[in-house]
Amino acid sequence: MSDGLPQPNTGEDSGRSGRQTLAVNLWTLLERAASSHPRRIAAVDGALRLSYAELRRRAAGVAAGLRQAGVGRGDRVAILELNSVAYLEAYFATAALGAILVPLGTRLAAPELARILRHADARVLLARGEFADLVRRLEEHGTPVELLAWTDSEGLSRSRRTLSLEACRGLDGRDFRCEPVAPEHVAQIYYTSGTTGVPKGVMLTHGNVAWHALGACAELSLDDRDVWFHVAPMFHLADAWACFAITWVAGTHVFTPRFEESRVLELLAAEGITLTNLVPTMLQRLIAVPDAARRRYPSLRRILSGGAPIAPAVVRRIVDTFHCEYVQTYGMTETSPFLTLSLLKEHLRREPPEVQFAYRAKTGRPFVTVELAVVGDDGRPVAADGATVGEVRARGPTVTPGYWNDPEATARAFVDGWLCTGDLATVDAEGYLQIVDRKKDMIISGGEKVYSTDVESVLYAHPAVLECAVFGVPDAQWGERVEAAVVLRQGADVDVDALLLHARQQLAAYKVPRRIRLLDELPKTGSGKILKGPLRNAPC
Amino acid sequence: MSDGLPQPNTGEDSGRSGRQTLAVNLWTLLERAASSHPRRIAAVDGALRLSYAELRRRAAGVAAGLRQAGVGRGDRVAILELNSVAYLEAYFATAALGAILVPLGTRLAAPELARILRHADARVLLARGEFADLVRRLEEHGTPVELLAWTDSEGLSRSRRTLSLEACRGLDGRDFRCEPVAPEHVAQIYYTSGTTGVPKGVMLTHGNVAWHALGACAELSLDDRDVWFHVAPMFHLADAWACFAITWVAGTHVFTPRFEESRVLELLAAEGITLTNLVPTMLQRLIAVPDAARRRYPSLRRILSGGAPIAPAVVRRIVDTFHCEYVQTYGMTETSPFLTLSLLKEHLRREPPEVQFAYRAKTGRPFVTVELAVVGDDGRPVAADGATVGEVRARGPTVTPGYWNDPEATARAFVDGWLCTGDLATVDAEGYLQIVDRKKDMIISGGEKVYSTDVESVLYAHPAVLECAVFGVPDAQWGERVEAAVVLRQGADVDVDALLLHARQQLAAYKVPRRIRLLDELPKTGSGKILKGPLRNAPC
Repeated sequence: MSDGLPQPNTGEDSGRSGRQTLAVNLWTLLERAASSHPRRIAAVDGALRLSYAELRRRAAGVAAGLRQAGVGRGDRVAILELNSVAYLEAYFATAALGAILVPLGTRLAAPELARILRHADARVLLARGEFADLVRRLEEHGTPVELLAWTDSEGLSRSRRTLSLEACRGLDGRDFRCEPVAPEHVAQIYYTSGTTGVPKGVMLTHGNVAWHALGACAELSLDDRDVWFHVAPMFHLADAWACFAITWVAGTHVFTPRFEESRVLELLAAEGITLTNLVPTMLQRLIAVPDAARRRYPSLRRILSGGAPIAPAVVRRIVDTFHCEYVQTYGMTETSPFLTLSLLKEHLRREPPEVQFAYRAKTGRPFVTVELAVVGDDGRPVAADGATVGEVRARGPTVTPGYWNDPEATARAFVDGWLCTGDLATVDAEGYLQIVDRKKDMIISGGEKVYSTDVESVLYAHPAVLECAVFGVPDAQWGERVEAAVVLRQGADVDVDALLLHARQQLAAYKVPRRIRLLDELPKTGSGKILKGPLRNAPC
Repeated sequence: MSDGLPQPNTGEDSGRSGRQTLAVNLWTLLERAASSHPRRIAAVDGALRLSYAELRRRAAGVAAGLRQAGVGRGDRVAILELNSVAYLEAYFATAALGAILVPLGTRLAAPELARILRHADARVLLARGEFADLVRRLEEHGTPVELLAWTDSEGLSRSRRTLSLEACRGLDGRDFRCEPVAPEHVAQIYYTSGTTGVPKGVMLTHGNVAWHALGACAELSLDDRDVWFHVAPMFHLADAWACFAITWVAGTHVFTPRFEESRVLELLAAEGITLTNLVPTMLQRLIAVPDAARRRYPSLRRILSGGAPIAPAVVRRIVDTFHCEYVQTYGMTETSPFLTLSLLKEHLRREPPEVQFAYRAKTGRPFVTVELAVVGDDGRPVAADGATVGEVRARGPTVTPGYWNDPEATARAFVDGWLCTGDLATVDAEGYLQIVDRKKDMIISGGEKVYSTDVESVLYAHPAVLECAVFGVPDAQWGERVEAAVVLRQGADVDVDALLLHARQQLAAYKVPRRIRLLDELPKTGSGKILKGPLRNAPC
């Protein structure tokens, strides 16, 4: 009945003949909130409190100002900014123009930033006044930037045209109209945080971002009563997705430019925060604040975190401190970012608390917009036994179309339309994943596979250990040998031998680190993930 | 900086070079539920209780059986079925094949059905055994149907190949794989319920349906604890959207093949229904059941309804009967269907009950996936004053690409990429719409505009009125004159003069019906909407 070829009336054709492609410019989410909730507080940034009508007016002014300055469809606009309403405005204003925002890590060095600007061919840079020195050093490294727009105080540049976004905010944006874009139109490029080699820019489309935002609204039951706290850096998707999801439901955005424990705890309570995402180090530092558990956070309903495994006991401590639900998340820039959330399925909510904490501490079950597969070397799904390890693959409308200007890297990342995450995981009978390692971090010592998280979870169980990382280093006899780096809690009175003894009591001999180094801190990415590369390559 | 033309690296190109189009076949929603919640009850249909693993197996069997019989990509598969798990299976099985389901109204006459089958060029018909006579009569009218598949009991056909879906359900579907489809691929065609003229088939794509389902998950906070009751006919989108939304969250589907008050009330309680959509007539009949308010529905959290205006007092009566939230909905087949929901905004939840009931009785504020505009004759938005009337226009990813095989009708339906709904509405300061009339039902009498709902709401306020319809009929002197048809409540002791007096006391003279006819029932569409055409054209 079907010949396998498109037929005259398959619908695709009739559909196309009738109308244009769907217009889903992300800007419409801000228009929607401004129209439905004009007086609702949209943004709290220090002393500044803006309604949605005001936020829309300011963002339209920024978009109109950039448009006047020649910024348009497909142009890459980089941004060097701390968490602020200016960042939120930049996400929406660039989307409105059909331009592509390139968020830059604020802790990168000038040569790294210059390399990214060149790779993205970004001719526009938005920057916060306090980065003026860094911007000057950037200019010395050679970048394609032609237009420099200050997000706050206006500065000068020796060699570039400059623009004041503060002045743009005063423009009359009432009649501003956004560019129509197809769902496949790129909205953002995030450069991955590796510090060596050629930068890789993950493209996210208007469709990717919108699907993810709506998925988050559904998964986290977001609505117009929600107040999101932008604590994790907004240049990273761990927080940036919330720009769109929270705006979609006309919730409130609260910003803090820097992570300071006391300020964060104060704002959590004072601004009635209902939800936030904290990177693991932030969480560790907050629950270590002596009076954290004695304060009250009556509005807080969920804390999200991820990027590192977490022990059920730590989940319990977070819940005891904040009296809210804890959600472990797993994701990557390539997937907008969520791949799993450790939300409990209906029947698990009837289990005893310790079972619930165990599931909440897992990597989680698939996020609503993605299909996940954990596949073995043969490309087939592994047994859902909580033990067999496979690679996580993902498919769905929140998966990146690929890497900017890098079809080779894009081709390498996909197999049969599935994104290969490079993460190794088990999946249990309930469908909850547990990440055991990065594929490239798995250690093979004397022919035995060692998953670094197996060893790390044993070290974390020692009360003196604040942070640790386990990795393999080349070894003439064993191929690789297991080593570890540990940061001790303040005042901990323990030495390396005690830690090694602890490890020997709980691990098979081949998994026990051959060496443990005590460090003051561990190297991290801009978003707070521990970097094992520098540890592996550090001199003995 | 931008020359307005696509540049080599706008992202669209790099994106396309890397990978295929997004695969979002709706079938994956069922796969997801079967994988995450294999033992959760998916469907309750009479004595039949199926887990998600079983539902997936049966639907895969149906899909595999249809595939074996030659059904494939783009083929139109019509279905004549009552609410049942077979209907749910058909929605998923046809989507899986990339085929297009054409749900048929079960109250249409054989010539009407034959006309639709011919227009859709449907070569496959799925039918319930009890429609065997109707199917036989269809064959006499000439249809393109080549394959007849019985959804339950197997019957014979004199002139067609037949297939038993019950036998297909036993096929081994473990390795069944769905067809990859683009979001623009058509999944369903719904024929609009007008009874005269050429049928118009609204196309909905996999993207339309998926966006709407996720939007409904977000708006109604659906999760795996939800139990949906398929009471309104599944051939219509008023209910059919829930096939996908409820499956996405692994909720439970409960079916009733026919509307019987006592049976519906019994299942509402016994099956722990949490949500359902009831057409207004069903709601009226349920709250009229003497002991309806004395029963308990402890799980019920929301009743949805729409398709006709509702008075705040009726909303209150529904809430007092069922002790759950009432949500007024407005939508159309062309928009998958929701355009508005009368959910309360955050600050309105703090208003006194009578204000809340007033908002809950309104047509509602925009659904999460649509942009709405209420525009005047000049094409510009009308004032948000709750008084100025304009036409509702809609845009977004849940809007149909157009009408099947009818580019002219498609072109007429859209202006600048916006779907013109043909509905007239006001919009208030809070952004809530109130539909006042169909554009074609608006009456112009002596140069004055009369919105039929203005007059209907006055008639509905009379305690004796069960249902009414107000419409214009041609008049030599006034152009049109206002007339009304009324169905009285059982036992109501009132005559036409009393109703006219009631109307005169509350309406301007030119709005008062020149004639009121008392009828036993009003003509309705298959989904329960009152049809004014037959009333207008009825002999005096």
